[in-house]
Amino acid sequence: MNAEIIAVGTELLLGDIVNTNGQFLAKELASLGINVYRQRTVGDNEERILGAFKDAFSDCDLIITTGGLGPTKDDMTKEMVCKFFNKELILHRESFKYIEEYFERLGRPFSENNRKQALFPEDAEILPNPNGTAPGAIIKGTDGKTIIILPGPPKEMKPMFNNYVKPYIKKLSDGILYSKVLRLFGIGESHMAECLDDIIEGQTNPTVAPYAKEMDVTLRITAKADSEEEAIKLIEPMEEEIRNRLNEYIYGEGDTTLEDEVAKLLIANHKTISLAESCTGGMVSSMLVNYPGVSEVFLEGAVTYTNEAKMRTLKVKKETLDRYTAVSEETAIEMAEGIARRTGSNIGISVTGIAGPGGETEEQPVGLVYIGIYNDGKVRAEKLNFQGNRSQIRSRAALNALNFIRKELI
Amino acid sequence: MNAEIIAVGTELLLGDIVNTNGQFLAKELASLGINVYRQRTVGDNEERILGAFKDAFSDCDLIITTGGLGPTKDDMTKEMVCKFFNKELILHRESFKYIEEYFERLGRPFSENNRKQALFPEDAEILPNPNGTAPGAIIKGTDGKTIIILPGPPKEMKPMFNNYVKPYIKKLSDGILYSKVLRLFGIGESHMAECLDDIIEGQTNPTVAPYAKEMDVTLRITAKADSEEEAIKLIEPMEEEIRNRLNEYIYGEGDTTLEDEVAKLLIANHKTISLAESCTGGMVSSMLVNYPGVSEVFLEGAVTYTNEAKMRTLKVKKETLDRYTAVSEETAIEMAEGIARRTGSNIGISVTGIAGPGGETEEQPVGLVYIGIYNDGKVRAEKLNFQGNRSQIRSRAALNALNFIRKELI
Repeated sequence: MNAEIIAVGTELLLGDIVNTNGQFLAKELASLGINVYRQRTVGDNEERILGAFKDAFSDCDLIITTGGLGPTKDDMTKEMVCKFFNKELILHRESFKYIEEYFERLGRPFSENNRKQALFPEDAEILPNPNGTAPGAIIKGTDGKTIIILPGPPKEMKPMFNNYVKPYIKKLSDGILYSKVLRLFGIGESHMAECLDDIIEGQTNPTVAPYAKEMDVTLRITAKADSEEEAIKLIEPMEEEIRNRLNEYIYGEGDTTLEDEVAKLLIANHKTISLAESCTGGMVSSMLVNYPGVSEVFLEGAVTYTNEAKMRTLKVKKETLDRYTAVSEETAIEMAEGIARRTGSNIGISVTGIAGPGGETEEQPVGLVYIGIYNDGKVRAEKLNFQGNRSQIRSRAALNALNFIRKELI
Repeated sequence: MNAEIIAVGTELLLGDIVNTNGQFLAKELASLGINVYRQRTVGDNEERILGAFKDAFSDCDLIITTGGLGPTKDDMTKEMVCKFFNKELILHRESFKYIEEYFERLGRPFSENNRKQALFPEDAEILPNPNGTAPGAIIKGTDGKTIIILPGPPKEMKPMFNNYVKPYIKKLSDGILYSKVLRLFGIGESHMAECLDDIIEGQTNPTVAPYAKEMDVTLRITAKADSEEEAIKLIEPMEEEIRNRLNEYIYGEGDTTLEDEVAKLLIANHKTISLAESCTGGMVSSMLVNYPGVSEVFLEGAVTYTNEAKMRTLKVKKETLDRYTAVSEETAIEMAEGIARRTGSNIGISVTGIAGPGGETEEQPVGLVYIGIYNDGKVRAEKLNFQGNRSQIRSRAALNALNFIRKELI
């Protein structure tokens, strides 16, 4: 089945935001065996949206739109679907009630505009949106043509796609595509591709697709088969071969994150942790706290960006700071040991570095970061160098700190 | 003049990479007064590329393509331009020499395939590429239709656009578009649209475009004029009118963030700050630390996710936690006061809440958050309710905490 992805929104067309939805949907549809024929971005304009539908259906049977479901007059995706399929727009009572309650919970005034978000083409299959006020919908026209409308914000669109659209499409397609995703850290995309060159070259079924974003690298192994069981059997030997080559970098499978895996490892190993952060400013703590059960093992975090705070809370010695500076192996060690002793945790992790812009010296360039690791009485620090702007250096340092914790635990 | 941006490449169509070129070109073209009519992504496929040209020229006079200029058989943008405009593909000697030399410098073998990169439609205006092996070109067809072909890699495409395409387009267009962006917090998109309904309805020049992403809401005021000066004059009264209605929500202009504005306000007011975070787990601290000069005012952050840490570091009383629980006005107040007293800062901010999933009671639902504010001797707490998953509740709480700081300072 051919499909076209249409992003609706003047803010996308004019480049105010990047269209990441297109990439997400394209990847997901491909993994479901749907042939993505074209992607297109149109502004909030009646004629152009209708024109896009017409042109898309000349080659495709399925259109997936993102955006244009908001409460303002600019938002007109549903209206255009009605016009195109010659359907009426009617109030969907359940959605209306849900949106009303949503605003009540938020303590925000429910505006008449928001009523518009509960209007849908007659006989549409409504897709609930627990993360926002715009439900989506599946609308069938004549001749087997279908339009699926999804909200624009990725945080609303992605769960809706996964929970409702994916199962719907799976029912449509013959045979199934089943994927397993391996997540890697600490290896570049090109190095990974080199390690798997022969596999990627010779792939038929299953296929192996590498993908990299920032420091997170993934490998998707996809098999086409008649059943999930059969697909899993096809994937197994391929996964084993990949693990033989790259196991040290693989931190998880499927929909997980480095911080979640680290939190799980801490809990499984009954190891408590505390953190002392300088340049990362609380980012490592904040990432760990995103794991719901982390209170079991996460005792405390200290954001000691100033020297005074390092001395006050972590008992870093003034002589150490004077002699070696705040960005040094010695300070990182005292920070890690200091926070562990303060809280009595098994593990203490510290991060101190120069995130820039400015603040560098000849010996200490921007991007220089020390990570200190205290683990049940033993303490050491590692020196790292990162490229990028302030925000990139900080998140790279934070992710590497997490990876150090992981390596202590496996 | 209407333009369409066409990205060529199967890797984009299938979502292996995000199309950031589209955003860059759209923004640049808008600022040059070119009306971006549509964006489109097509695979490396003869028929579909020709179809895209045909469809695009039905509304536009200018097409800008990115990608498909590489050395392999899959790369066929130039071939398709020739076919479409009925031109011949001929060797451009200068480019050929340049590519040969490029490979020599890199010490890489020059392959016959690379000769293809020096072939261009006859009478094309060649755009040199100092950052790669694929020159671009401007090709004129009949009836004033023009195709500008650019390479796909952003670090080759962007300088080529800036150095050659921008001056070319400037000569073509009449007038410029100039925009000013206002950033708002604490108001929903629909409520904002209602407040500005009459303005948005009646807009001609300047135009006002609202846009919302997560809790961040922006308004773009765009004027068309002969010069930047004149455009600014057109924008001024419109901005004043908007500020009259929505000033309490406007925290900044242009390319800024709430955390940057808060850091700047703290520095300008010579107010030091320290933070005590429970459910946000260091996120507020981490956001503030992203502002490079923040060490002047940011004294310390405490990530006190457990009750023990709240007592140990913030001196929250055991009785308070027992009687009112960790998520209460009383605890938020003791946390804010505790961190301020510990560090001696002017301002102390605390965040404690139930981010879920789980952990709720009848009186304390998921999303309940208290923010405590200590400011030079006075202390209070505010109760808030957020929707969303754990990560959304946490970032919404963090952004609201920042906004509370902002409101203390203006």
